[in-house]
Amino acid sequence: MYAITIPEPGGPETLVWTKVPDPVPGAGEVLVEVVAGAVNRADIMQRQGFYDPPPGASPHPGLECSGRITALGPGATGWAVGDEVCALLAGGGYAEQVAVPVGQLLPVPAGLDLKQAAALPEVVCTVWSNVFMVAHLRPGETLLVHGGSSGIGTMAIQLAKAVGAKVAVTAGTKEKLERCAELGADILINYREQDFVAELKRATDGAGADVILDNMGAKYLDRNVKALAVNGRLAIIGMQGGVKGELNIGALLGKRGAISATSLRARPPAEKAAIVAAVREHVWPLIEGGHVRPVVDREIPMPDAADAHRVVEASGHIGKVLLIAP
Amino acid sequence: MYAITIPEPGGPETLVWTKVPDPVPGAGEVLVEVVAGAVNRADIMQRQGFYDPPPGASPHPGLECSGRITALGPGATGWAVGDEVCALLAGGGYAEQVAVPVGQLLPVPAGLDLKQAAALPEVVCTVWSNVFMVAHLRPGETLLVHGGSSGIGTMAIQLAKAVGAKVAVTAGTKEKLERCAELGADILINYREQDFVAELKRATDGAGADVILDNMGAKYLDRNVKALAVNGRLAIIGMQGGVKGELNIGALLGKRGAISATSLRARPPAEKAAIVAAVREHVWPLIEGGHVRPVVDREIPMPDAADAHRVVEASGHIGKVLLIAP
Repeated sequence: MYAITIPEPGGPETLVWTKVPDPVPGAGEVLVEVVAGAVNRADIMQRQGFYDPPPGASPHPGLECSGRITALGPGATGWAVGDEVCALLAGGGYAEQVAVPVGQLLPVPAGLDLKQAAALPEVVCTVWSNVFMVAHLRPGETLLVHGGSSGIGTMAIQLAKAVGAKVAVTAGTKEKLERCAELGADILINYREQDFVAELKRATDGAGADVILDNMGAKYLDRNVKALAVNGRLAIIGMQGGVKGELNIGALLGKRGAISATSLRARPPAEKAAIVAAVREHVWPLIEGGHVRPVVDREIPMPDAADAHRVVEASGHIGKVLLIAP
Repeated sequence: MYAITIPEPGGPETLVWTKVPDPVPGAGEVLVEVVAGAVNRADIMQRQGFYDPPPGASPHPGLECSGRITALGPGATGWAVGDEVCALLAGGGYAEQVAVPVGQLLPVPAGLDLKQAAALPEVVCTVWSNVFMVAHLRPGETLLVHGGSSGIGTMAIQLAKAVGAKVAVTAGTKEKLERCAELGADILINYREQDFVAELKRATDGAGADVILDNMGAKYLDRNVKALAVNGRLAIIGMQGGVKGELNIGALLGKRGAISATSLRARPPAEKAAIVAAVREHVWPLIEGGHVRPVVDREIPMPDAADAHRVVEASGHIGKVLLIAP
């Protein structure tokens, strides 16, 4: 088969569509013929040499895909050849085929086409596991989403609104904020022009955010703690603003606050399966009911993955960038 | 009545046993004739002027007591005059009488005398709320307790062992570590002579602690993150080692870790009542069954509270220092 490979770390041009060995489904895995993959920031870090695949994972990039099951490995039950699925992957989604543990498969939601479904697994699992399973966002609470127009952001807005929360977002342009508003965001903050702590406090009568979903890490740590409400929970899922930052423990303690930091890719298969099962139970009905939808910025042929990385690195996109298999 | 007052912030000598107005039980409160109080580090901070009582609380120090109910305020139900109780207080425990919301009352556990019961409310509520309600310590997991011989520490060791967890402690002397071992601690670390991260890792086959109960704050922040196991939870309840420290978010994210910081005193009465109810349900049977007991270092007459503060500040004690009302 063909796959995007990374012969050596570097810029987008380092991504090469090459012939590689076909994957073989192991015990409890199925083989999926990929129809579409999607770009995540972790793929860019992997391309740059900063994020090696976990042990045992495919060396090729790609953390999610959609496609059709073409073979079952030993002991793979609950699915059949020909099933249309989308999947959370530890790697290898930028390829014509990928082997997937059955616990990481999801059916294509009714009403969605197979390509669109590739935009779902990583963002839905990341948002559900962090905002709901770890930070326990509840109806009536306020969620602050940094990068509201990203793939993660557009899903977080919709899921939080669907469960009856109030949503504040930050983004860097008026156009991005307008798209966030269309998805249901209540409080729009342009981080280039406004102080997000002050704006959030103003819009919540001084209360702040009960949950914050953060992709900036160190750069926002102090301000995020300031923006938390009493009993607030900060969920860090990215470190685009650096790895080490000063934590004001006194401020956190004064709010009885909590900080979590997670990544999805490094979780063992059993943890991924638990998240996927929760997503299927809680999120799939919202998608099939039309309350939540994937936001796709554009589709790019998979062999041109370098162009897709350029789009995501330029940060002009809104939602997900898909890679369509030839 | 008489109470210990703090005419102005300062050393132990600033504590004065003085005649003050009798407290009056408000709606949903009872009046308790105090038999014993107990010293907490927060009392020392209050005496030094660093920790003002929350709005509406007694201006006098003292966060827990035991005694007998002598009057019921309007709408105070579930308790009767003459009941022997211990109580979690927002202040005013260093006194002959104190008014207490009924949600913060606990019966004296069978088998304990009334004075000993004064050693329970603050430590049991602090440990239960942090280690179990926030950090969700589970059977088979490892808890690291800093300051294992403190009032908090001696209770955390016993409660964690009672639910089937493994317990590591740090303390500064051989004698203190021996007392921790008598209470059930499995892994003993002398923080003056040993690196607690290395010792903990050595004793857990490299895994680290699933939950850490920390009273040091900034000074231990980086090492505590290093000592966490995958999916580990750091519960900060004190800042004896400073307020601001560098957080390595990358290290926390690599472990999918979480950090919480709480204080009990600032919680609104409804949250305190929820904690007290959970303690009565889960911890009281362990005490009445003889599995968990208060550890009392010594008893000091309440008018000599200055001496009690000197004992706690010198850190030579093990467990709680009680103040006995005249």
